Formats: sequence, C-alpha cells, structure tokens
Amino acid sequence: MGELRFTSSVDVKARKNAAERLRAKFLELVQKILEGEEPSMEIPKRTLSNTIYDRERKLLLLGPEKFERNFLDMREARKFMQTVLMASIIYEALVNDEYPTIRDLYYRGKHTIKYRDHRGRTEEENTWDEQKESDAVLRDIEVFVGLLREDMLILSKEKGKVVGDMRIRSGDDVIDLSKMGHGAYAIEPTPDLIEFLDVNAEFVLVVEKDAVFQQLHRAGFWKKYKAILITSAGQPDRATRRFVRRLNEELGLPVYILTDADPYGWYIYSVFRIGSITLSYESERLATPNAKFLGVSMTDIFGDPKTGKKPYLTEAERKNFIIKAKKTDIKRAKELMNYEWFKTPKWEREIKLFLEKQSKLEIEALAGKGLRFLMDVYIPTKIQTQDFIE
Amino acid sequence: MGELRFTSSVDVKARKNAAERLRAKFLELVQKILEGEEPSMEIPKRTLSNTIYDRERKLLLLGPEKFERNFLDMREARKFMQTVLMASIIYEALVNDEYPTIRDLYYRGKHTIKYRDHRGRTEEENTWDEQKESDAVLRDIEVFVGLLREDMLILSKEKGKVVGDMRIRSGDDVIDLSKMGHGAYAIEPTPDLIEFLDVNAEFVLVVEKDAVFQQLHRAGFWKKYKAILITSAGQPDRATRRFVRRLNEELGLPVYILTDADPYGWYIYSVFRIGSITLSYESERLATPNAKFLGVSMTDIFGDPKTGKKPYLTEAERKNFIIKAKKTDIKRAKELMNYEWFKTPKWEREIKLFLEKQSKLEIEALAGKGLRFLMDVYIPTKIQTQDFIE
Repeated sequence: MGELRFTSSVDVKARKNAAERLRAKFLELVQKILEGEEPSMEIPKRTLSNTIYDRERKLLLLGPEKFERNFLDMREARKFMQTVLMASIIYEALVNDEYPTIRDLYYRGKHTIKYRDHRGRTEEENTWDEQKESDAVLRDIEVFVGLLREDMLILSKEKGKVVGDMRIRSGDDVIDLSKMGHGAYAIEPTPDLIEFLDVNAEFVLVVEKDAVFQQLHRAGFWKKYKAILITSAGQPDRATRRFVRRLNEELGLPVYILTDADPYGWYIYSVFRIGSITLSYESERLATPNAKFLGVSMTDIFGDPKTGKKPYLTEAERKNFIIKAKKTDIKRAKELMNYEWFKTPKWEREIKLFLEKQSKLEIEALAGKGLRFLMDVYIPTKIQTQDFIE
Repeated sequence: MGELRFTSSVDVKARKNAAERLRAKFLELVQKILEGEEPSMEIPKRTLSNTIYDRERKLLLLGPEKFERNFLDMREARKFMQTVLMASIIYEALVNDEYPTIRDLYYRGKHTIKYRDHRGRTEEENTWDEQKESDAVLRDIEVFVGLLREDMLILSKEKGKVVGDMRIRSGDDVIDLSKMGHGAYAIEPTPDLIEFLDVNAEFVLVVEKDAVFQQLHRAGFWKKYKAILITSAGQPDRATRRFVRRLNEELGLPVYILTDADPYGWYIYSVFRIGSITLSYESERLATPNAKFLGVSMTDIFGDPKTGKKPYLTEAERKNFIIKAKKTDIKRAKELMNYEWFKTPKWEREIKLFLEKQSKLEIEALAGKGLRFLMDVYIPTKIQTQDFIE
C-alpha cells in the first residue's frame, strides 16, 4: 500500500522539472572535473552596471556580462563552496518533497566546516553567518540555472489577495474568485502554477492598501465595474507582481495601480511596472510594463491649470486631508527623479508639483470624502478619461 | 426598476441592527435634553485601574467603573462634541451603505469649527488633529453602545488566513476551505458574520509566521492531521483573534499556537489567549482563554532535566540555529514576568530558562532541520504528549 499523497499533483510535476534542470546544470560542473578541467561556473553578473533599462520593452533587465566563479581561485573558493552547498540543499529539498523558504535554506546550510590548513593546523570556517550571504548565493543559482526560486518550490510569505469574476485552478482545486464572500483569495507563493480557466472582467485594479481593498470589495466594486480587484498590502511581494503580470500578459487586461499620493506610493507603482533595481533579473517575469498609475496623483489633488483639469478635492477638503511631506519624502522624490522611467513629462510634472506643494495624501482621504465618491466617481472617471500616468 | 445590489444580504441585516442600536442609545441623550436635563453620557472607564484579570474566565475584562461625560463641563465639552460627531459619522455611514475604516472615520470628522467666544471674538477649534484622538472616541462609543466596531461595519486591513476541511458561509457565498489550492482563504474583517456550516477537524493550529503556514499547507499538514490551519502573519489582528475564538468556543476545537521561541512570540500567544491590555473591553469576544502555547518553548530547545524531557535539537543544531537574545528581548521578558497570566510554574520556568540562556529560536530553524521533522515529529509529538504551556 502506498502512502497517501497530501501534496498537489501540480507540485509533483513542478518538482520533477526543477530537480532535473538543477541536476543537469550542476552535472556540467562534475563533467568538467572528470575531464580534468578546473571547476568553474559562468554566472550572469547581477551588478548595477550590468542592469539595463530596456526602453523598448520598458523593463529592467540583466545585461550580457558574466563572471567566472572558480574553485581554485583563493578569493572565489568560499563563494564557490556556498553556491554548490546551496544547490545541493535545494536539490535535496526537491527530491524529498520539501518546501523550503529562503530563511530555512539559510538554516539548512549554516554550519561550521573544520579543516586542516597547509601547515596542518585545524581551522574552522562557517558556511555562512548571515542570511544575506545565503540569499546572494540563491540569486546566483537563479541566474545560473535560469530558474526562479518559485520554480524550485521555494516558498515565502505572501500578502497579495484577489477577488473578481474569474475561475482559476490552483493545485488540484478549481477556485471561483467571485465566491469568496466577504473574504478574499490569498494568492499562492508560486503563481506560475496557477491556471487561468475563465475570466469575465475588463480591467485589473491593484490597491496598495488592504483596508481600501476591503472597502471596495465589500461595496461590490468589482461586480459593478467588472474588475479583478487586488491588493498588494503595501510593497508588493514577488507572487503578487507575477500574478498581476500574468493577468495583463495572458488575459490582456489593462492594469491600474492605486496608491497613496506620495513617493512611497510611486515606488510601489514602479516596482509593479519596472521591477526592483536590485533584482533586475526577475523583472522579465515579474514586471508589468503596461501597468498604469491611476492615482492618487498630485493633479487629482490640486488640479492642473495647464490642461484645465479640475481637482477632485475642494479647498476645504485639501485643508483637512493633506499631510505635510516629511524630509524623507522629499529626499525619496528627488531620488526617483533620477530613475530613467520617471523621466517623462507627466512624471516630471507630478514630482515637481509634489516638491512645490510638499504635500501628500492617503487613499483613505478619498474614502473619507465618501466610499461612493471613491468607487463611483473618482476611479471610474480616472479610467474613462484615461487620466493616468505611465 | 431598483438599482442592482452589489453588497451582501448579510451586511444589509447587520447594518440595520447596528444603526438601530446606535440610534436608540443616542436618542436617550436627545430625550435628556428635551426633558431639560444636562446632556451627559455614562461611559465605562477604559483605564488600567478598571481592567481586571478574571482568573475564573481567564480573561482581561473591563471593571464596573464608569465616568460621566458632561456637555456643560468645560473640561469635557470637547470630548463630548467628538463623541457625538463620531457617532453621527458612523450612523451616516451605516444608513448610506458605507464601509468606513478607522482611518477614514478620522478623515470624515476632521474639520475646523469656527465659533464666537463669550467676548464675541471669532475662534477656531479643530474637531481632532490626530487619529489617536478619533480612535479613542470610537472606543468610547464601542463601550457606551455595547457594539464592537465590526458590528458597525467598520472595516480594517486583515492579515489572517485559513485552510482546512471546513465549509463556511460568508456574505452570500458558501466557501469550502479545503478547496483553496495552493492559496488560502483570507479572513474577512467582520468574522462574526461568518456562519460555520460543517467542520471535519480535530484541532486548530495557529502559526505566527505566514511563510511557515505556506510550508505546512503545501505539504498537506491539515489534511494529514485533520487540522484547521491558520496564520496570523505576525501580531494577530482583531478578526483573526475573533475567528480563532469562535472555532474554539462554538466548535469545541482545541487551539494550539506556534510562534518563535522569544518574548515577542510569547506576547503573540498572550494576545490570542488573554487579549491586549489597552483594549480589555474587547477581550470578552476576541480572546481564547483555552488557547495553548504549543511552542517553540525553551525546553524544546534545551530539554528539561527536572522532568527528563529531551531537547528536540542536538548540540550541533543548537549551535547553528540559536540566535543570541537582544537587550530588548531581555527587557520584554522581564516585563512579561509581571503579567498575572504568566505567573504559572511552567511560564516561570520558560522565562527563567530564557533569561539564563539568553537565546531565542525561530520556527524556521525547525523547518530548516526538515519540514517533515516539523510536520511529522515536532508538532504531533507536542500535541500527543500534551507538551504545551497554558
């Protein structure tokens, strides 16, 4: 009698694929050794200088530069050991039906190696001391093997939620995202394993704040406006980004991002749209270059005399709702001005207006003006008049 | 033709109830004024001195003390105005099908009142300046009217997730929590409106960390061990606490809490079990006095010579996994020793061992030792041998 299986058939297949690719890649290394060659890995460089903003595809991508990690190079031996150690831990986890996190990969590998040096003295060396070391090695493996961590069933905490008129298959279940009651569907850490079955929606609205998501969901926004409603609950994690990208790319749904009107909100938009600078190799799969910044924009608050746009807030509401920008906000805004993808007329206008007014606004202020205002006036008007920033 | 309804029938009913109770309570105030009496409200005191630890029920509760909030008392007039303002905003939201959050209640009420003083000079006064003022007034209304904010359809962000062999009704939908695929069900902010339909489970396991929840879920822990698996994703919010309490109280399921082995983890357990000190009036509905601290305990790490308990970690694993306690951890542990409900032999032993070893451990370290170890050895053994702390 076989043991009952408690994991999904989807995972069994994903696991097999990843294990085979990982094994094949590292067998090349073994092959080199067997042929008497120096063991070395050729790994794409994850440096800023090798990070390129592709204007055409509007993505941050890894450039063509690579480096050699050689076992017989004194400066590289430790990193080489760490890379092979990490690869073996991931491989073991794959074949043993485990689901590690990056935190427990760190714990799994953490130990002290005792060895004798060339003078015969016993020495000790830790495999790694901090998680940032093991994380860096994991990233090397991702670019070396060409598999993202999710492909290797490495899990992580996950904040993203979704509701909407859409059916998906996740694991061995079919889930109707329109039948979540007052709750929502918490997106899995491996969204590439989700199968989209059918969808009845015209656009995707991503809300930065979970509480505003709850309000819009509860008031039936997604039903009324045929939307897929998503929250990233702050800075988006990888799974939420990938899920949003797939909705855009595979289902052709436009994606609108709604954040607070401040540099932190702009950065959240930027991560959805372009990707994070430190992890550019992931952008190709996680970023949504077509994502639009719906608001809240500075011209929504103050209007725009140049275009004749009227503000959504009255003078009195501005007085009550606006928050004075902090020094860190100003600093952050000036940093964002240097990013390639913020160098467009609309963004320059936005940032300039922010620096001039030194004011920011939370989405909750619009809900404070009235949930019906947010839901039935502000969002639909912004979409219909194409009053967004790209 | 009526407008299509986009909100649930459950909310329509809840809304009506809350509006009626709120109205009735404040009509008493109107009645007083009509009868020529001084307008005043008698509100239960939410002070520490009026917070009582009920040893019998093992709950933090509000004591019998009340105070009068009089309109004609100079020191009270501002607070009186704030209370009536907040009540009217909540009432308006209820009858207008709104779903405010505490943040937008703050925005809704925030404005400047202009008036003439007794010398005829124009003066200005803000209704409130910061959210902590409007939050305090909301709490007064909760204890005054005897309705929690959730009863008044005030929403909030929500981190809790659940999976397990259980069917619930939320809003107008029936949701099968065993059919969530690799994802999970995100608990609604108003868990009292959830109806439990049927359950096939023997206990509830609450995991502090979302990533560990993902691992256990994915490996099929809840299927194999007939559990309802929940994560609070850190410090539990109100909805997660209420949901857990209802599973315990209404379905009779034992509740086990699994956190990191450190004072922060103990505090999370404490909030689930007893309630938070500042919000004792909520404890009666949110706390789970029967909840058990499953681990990770200090004796799990170091063993216990007194009882002959063997540690779950080897000497080498301790060396690799243990994190040195910080000064803030030590300080926190000493504070917890003063809490009434930590003054039990088992907790005193736990805290003493922590202060002696000055060591803490993350759950991830146990997953690092092996997910199978965590899932098939550690958790089941702890439950079967009743090796938990109450």
